[in-house]
Amino acid sequence: MRLVTYRAHVNASARMGAIVDDLVIDLQRLGAHVGHAIPGDILDFIDLGPHAVAVATELLIQHRDKWPLDTALPLANVRLLAPIPRPRKNIFGIGLNYVEHVEESSRSLDTSKDLPKQPVIFSKPPTAVIGPDDAIEHDAGITRQLDWEVELAVVIGRRARRVGEARALDHVFGYTVINDISARDNRRAGQWIYSKGQDTYAPLGPVIVTADEIPDPHDLNLGLRVNGVEKQNANTRHLLFKIPTLIADISAGIALEPGDIIATGTPSGVGAGRTPQEWLWPGDVVEAWVEGIGTLRNPVVAVGDVPCRRAEQ
Amino acid sequence: MRLVTYRAHVNASARMGAIVDDLVIDLQRLGAHVGHAIPGDILDFIDLGPHAVAVATELLIQHRDKWPLDTALPLANVRLLAPIPRPRKNIFGIGLNYVEHVEESSRSLDTSKDLPKQPVIFSKPPTAVIGPDDAIEHDAGITRQLDWEVELAVVIGRRARRVGEARALDHVFGYTVINDISARDNRRAGQWIYSKGQDTYAPLGPVIVTADEIPDPHDLNLGLRVNGVEKQNANTRHLLFKIPTLIADISAGIALEPGDIIATGTPSGVGAGRTPQEWLWPGDVVEAWVEGIGTLRNPVVAVGDVPCRRAEQ
Repeated sequence: MRLVTYRAHVNASARMGAIVDDLVIDLQRLGAHVGHAIPGDILDFIDLGPHAVAVATELLIQHRDKWPLDTALPLANVRLLAPIPRPRKNIFGIGLNYVEHVEESSRSLDTSKDLPKQPVIFSKPPTAVIGPDDAIEHDAGITRQLDWEVELAVVIGRRARRVGEARALDHVFGYTVINDISARDNRRAGQWIYSKGQDTYAPLGPVIVTADEIPDPHDLNLGLRVNGVEKQNANTRHLLFKIPTLIADISAGIALEPGDIIATGTPSGVGAGRTPQEWLWPGDVVEAWVEGIGTLRNPVVAVGDVPCRRAEQ
Repeated sequence: MRLVTYRAHVNASARMGAIVDDLVIDLQRLGAHVGHAIPGDILDFIDLGPHAVAVATELLIQHRDKWPLDTALPLANVRLLAPIPRPRKNIFGIGLNYVEHVEESSRSLDTSKDLPKQPVIFSKPPTAVIGPDDAIEHDAGITRQLDWEVELAVVIGRRARRVGEARALDHVFGYTVINDISARDNRRAGQWIYSKGQDTYAPLGPVIVTADEIPDPHDLNLGLRVNGVEKQNANTRHLLFKIPTLIADISAGIALEPGDIIATGTPSGVGAGRTPQEWLWPGDVVEAWVEGIGTLRNPVVAVGDVPCRRAEQ
């Protein structure tokens, strides 16, 4: 399934839906037609576990092309939000998880040129999450080094605590796209949360693809464009620490819970690593994409009191 | 008010209460006796804002010494949980916020000897929170450098985004104690979340004292004992960045929301900074205290598969 959270119109409440062709199907209403209680909120749905995914998938197959009244809306008519608009805890980010990005970071930032021996974990608050087409805020009073980072994001389906690598993927609900927006000049004593955790710095979506529809999460092309120009293009096969290792490592110390999000790290091609360096400015449009999931498009807009124009290169 | 979250017995649900003398008063039930709807959950209560605090305070004054049936329990008979058992986002921690702790950290860890120019922000996931008398888990397979850090914690009462210092304290609901437990050997590329964010690494409590009862949060003694021996003893007047600065700085980029927690930083006397260095081991008992709030006591227990005994000094 390809799951979204959407509003049917501006004042409508946020609801979970499934994308089928060019329609959004309201799973809660579809379930009600046949006596299945399916939640309207995606986190409540994830809490129900794999059986709920199987039931919902079967319902979509049964009703395809004969949707009951009021269960289907044209995708073009709804507003997509982040598939998980408000995570229940911080997002876990993984730094320095592609070889060439380790190299570009050591040249342009303050990180080591050696490959990390263990996953480098940081966090983004849940308040950083925005959805497709939402604005990334550029506050020139805070940053003049706003950067992009396309990443494959893992959504946890089942609680994980001290889970071994062999069973780790059993705890995955699905996958989505995250753009790990980073204000490079906002690191504090080396800590990344203020540089990566500000409001609007976690564009997420457009859909969560359930794990059953991603045969191999370590063979997905991914990339990013700024104003239509390709800046990143790689494949998740190059991840230094693969997803089972990340889940085993984090869950050795920290409980992962249904709906938790792990951003698996970005490949090379970020603005900080380019010659000359490039940054995001108001008016830019960023498109982050992962094969089989989709494209997450976000404009950059100016906020705050400090006037800003694109710096001369 | 001195607010707690408690269970009346092992299987009872967690409820908010107010401590009066040696009793816990169930504010929801007390309110119901006189037609005031007061929530049973402390986050719902904080959401209601300052008026709810005023109403609840007045109710306690009116009924003191003549508590209606079923509203009062002896404090000795209840189990206290963390006053906020499950925050809605990560806890914000502030590193290197007392001069002498900056000095000891630069000697013993990997931080700079220069005072930070801006607050050093890091995070602990909500899953790290435990309450009074709950066990701090010592997993010898993960760490052999488990350390303590007593801190004054600020609880946000009203949403703060781009709030100036002059109005920042208007956004404070109250204050509590946090022990910022840190596995010094679990930093990853300088990032602190795995060293400070593991499950049980955020003992919190025992009570939240509402802001109206703390005349000056920058004149509170605070300290910490391990097995009855004093390790830290200082005063919040020595905070490098004061609470209004912390709220203004964080909220410039990150929305602070009702119930959010800021751990304001620890004074000198942590285990890493001692000669020889000292760490926590299974069997130890840690008591963190802040003047006017109370003492937060937690035992350290062994978990995991790796056997462990106290290292020889």
